[in-house]
Amino acid sequence: MRTVTYGAACSLDGFIAARDGAIDWLHFSKDVQQHIAQYWKTIDTMLVGRKTWAAGEEQGGMSGMIGGITTYLFSRTMREAPPGVHLVRDDAGAFVRELKRQPGKGICVMGGGELAVSLLEAGVVDEVGLNVHPILLGDGVPLFRDAGRRIALELLESRVIEGGCVLSQYRVREGARA
Amino acid sequence: MRTVTYGAACSLDGFIAARDGAIDWLHFSKDVQQHIAQYWKTIDTMLVGRKTWAAGEEQGGMSGMIGGITTYLFSRTMREAPPGVHLVRDDAGAFVRELKRQPGKGICVMGGGELAVSLLEAGVVDEVGLNVHPILLGDGVPLFRDAGRRIALELLESRVIEGGCVLSQYRVREGARA
Repeated sequence: MRTVTYGAACSLDGFIAARDGAIDWLHFSKDVQQHIAQYWKTIDTMLVGRKTWAAGEEQGGMSGMIGGITTYLFSRTMREAPPGVHLVRDDAGAFVRELKRQPGKGICVMGGGELAVSLLEAGVVDEVGLNVHPILLGDGVPLFRDAGRRIALELLESRVIEGGCVLSQYRVREGARA
Repeated sequence: MRTVTYGAACSLDGFIAARDGAIDWLHFSKDVQQHIAQYWKTIDTMLVGRKTWAAGEEQGGMSGMIGGITTYLFSRTMREAPPGVHLVRDDAGAFVRELKRQPGKGICVMGGGELAVSLLEAGVVDEVGLNVHPILLGDGVPLFRDAGRRIALELLESRVIEGGCVLSQYRVREGARA
């Protein structure tokens, strides 16, 4: 079974972007680049929500990221998929449950929180990987939303990287049912 | 100058208690007990908000905790202080700024988030110590509230303890002005 990972960089108070979408507080250190490069080798599929896609496009385009990566964009309102991207308008949980049954490498859920919570709710997320930055933003785009129930995790690894960031990886104990 | 620390145990999604106040998900491991015992030796003063006090009383009483610790309870609505406790009805930031000028040991800010954010806003918190538990609660009493501005931190230490908890200590870089 393919591993679905929700991974994000966040502030200590749990935001993946400031209220205005700003991510100028992120450290793109060598450690982070190495971590992402290694993780990138383990996946072949990316799941993106509509808002994250739009934010990525504003920050200079998502298409550069998705070379060689099968990308599914989840939106109930979009009519047409951007070039090279598959548009998914169905129930995200059911779609990903089916996707995990197909052969392939790991699957990455890009923030933000709306797609992630619907997949956590559906019980199809296997791992959560966070890069917690040493800053309080106060407000912004939340990393997690309410999945309607407690979700128990197991810490797989936690280590300090450049810039005082804490990189932690968790396995979803409850919830990963598919 | 005395060090003011906001310390709390929290879920990975940043809650210090479930919506109904439940803290049954906390690990009271040997590691935690050792950590608290060591920290306890460094302080002589505790700052508590009204809601945390009330929650503590419900959970079996705060008075057992405060032996030998000068305790200030912050409330604008309470009229009378519980036995052995000083009631502070003034501006919390100004009060703590003055308190830090007096000789003494460290000062501990007990969660929840309302007193903590008013002290972060006032720039009198020097350190933040978190014990992040491997669980998503979805909803509850937030660890952090919006201080109205970004607050930069410096990671002092982060280590994994029993139960897959991550114990991290931060110094407030911006904000600790008094």
